Amino acid sequence: MAKKSTKTRNLREDCIVEALSIIGEDGLENLSLREVARRVGVSHQAPYKHFENREHLLAEVVGRCFDAFSKHLHTRKLTGDPTEDLASLGNAYIRYALNHPLEYRLMFGTSLPDPDKYPAMLEKAQYAYAILRDMLTQLFAANSRQKGADADLDAFFVWATMHGLATVLKSPSLATLPVTPSKLGKALPHAFQRVRAALKADLPA
Amino acid sequence: MAKKSTKTRNLREDCIVEALSIIGEDGLENLSLREVARRVGVSHQAPYKHFENREHLLAEVVGRCFDAFSKHLHTRKLTGDPTEDLASLGNAYIRYALNHPLEYRLMFGTSLPDPDKYPAMLEKAQYAYAILRDMLTQLFAANSRQKGADADLDAFFVWATMHGLATVLKSPSLATLPVTPSKLGKALPHAFQRVRAALKADLPA
Repeated sequence: MAKKSTKTRNLREDCIVEALSIIGEDGLENLSLREVARRVGVSHQAPYKHFENREHLLAEVVGRCFDAFSKHLHTRKLTGDPTEDLASLGNAYIRYALNHPLEYRLMFGTSLPDPDKYPAMLEKAQYAYAILRDMLTQLFAANSRQKGADADLDAFFVWATMHGLATVLKSPSLATLPVTPSKLGKALPHAFQRVRAALKADLPA
Repeated sequence: MAKKSTKTRNLREDCIVEALSIIGEDGLENLSLREVARRVGVSHQAPYKHFENREHLLAEVVGRCFDAFSKHLHTRKLTGDPTEDLASLGNAYIRYALNHPLEYRLMFGTSLPDPDKYPAMLEKAQYAYAILRDMLTQLFAANSRQKGADADLDAFFVWATMHGLATVLKSPSLATLPVTPSKLGKALPHAFQRVRAALKADLPA
C-alpha cells in the first residue's frame, strides 16, 4: 500500500484523470468509482472521500473538459476586430472538437450530470458559452445597423452551426457525399464566410 | 414452425424490420443475424439466404432510413418560390431528426457500413442529399447575383447547420445555457432567418 500513501494527497485529482481514461478506453457505461479505485490503486471506499457517487465524479470530469475547452478558446490571438475575432473563435472551436473528440463528446454529446445538482460544472459550461456570447455582443456593438441584434439568439445560431460543422466533418455519412476532397477542403472556409455574411445582414423586424 | 412457414415469403423484410427494433431497444452493438433470426422465429441460418453478414443487413436498414427520410422531405408542399421551398425543406429536416432519433442517428451519427460495398445504400444516401443540393441550384438560378454560387459548397453549409440545430436542440448541454424557454422558442426561426440571409449574400470572390 506504499502506492496509496504517496498518492493520498492527489487522490481527488488522480480519480478525475483516471475517470477520463476509463471513459475514453472502455466507454462511459464502464465508469464506476470501484473501477477508478482499482486503477488508482486504492481501496474501494477511498474515492468516496472526495465524490459522493459516480455522477459527482462525472460532473467533475465534465467540468474539467469545459475548463480545458475555454482555455483553448482563449489561447487564440485577438486582433480587436470583432469580425476577425469571432472567426478565430469559430476556428478554435472546430479545432478543439476535431482534436479532442472524447472531451467534446462529454460536453456536448452525452447525458450530462444534472446541472442543478452540480453548480460548479454548470458554471464552467456557462463560462465557455459566454465567450461566444460576449464576442457577438462586441460584434453587434461595433456595427450601428446591428445595435438591436440579440446576442443570445445569435450565440445559439453560431453554436449550432459550429457544432454541426464539427460533427459533420467527423460523420461517417460524409463518405456518402458526392464531394471531391478539394471541394471538401473549401467547405469549412466557405461556411465561415456564410456565417459572417449572415451576422452582417439586417433581419426583418 | 408454423410461424416460420407463414413468414418465409417476407423473411427479408421481417429481418430488416426486426433489426431496426433490436438497434432501438438494445443498441447497435447487439445487432446480429443470430438475434434477428431468434426474434423473427426462424433458424439461425435462415437470414443468410438474404444477407451475407451483419454489415449487409445493417446497410439495408440504413438504406431504408434514407428512403423514409427522403420520402418525408418530399411530403412538404412546394410553393415554387425557391427561398420558401428551401425553408420548408429545413423545417422538414429538423422535424424528422427530432421525431425519428433512431433513424436519424443511424444515418448521420453512427458508423455506416462501407458505402463502396453497398451501392444501394450509397445511392439512397446520395438521393437524400441531392434534394438539398437541387433546391440550392434552383435558389441560385432564380437570383442573378448568385449565378456563380456553388451549390455543393452551400449544400454542405446548410446540411451542417441543420444537423447542428437538430442535435443542439436535443443536446443535454442545452440545459446548461442561460436561455429562457421563450427565447429558445425563437432560436430556430431566428437561425432560419440567418441562413436565409447568408444564402442571399454576395460572397467575396
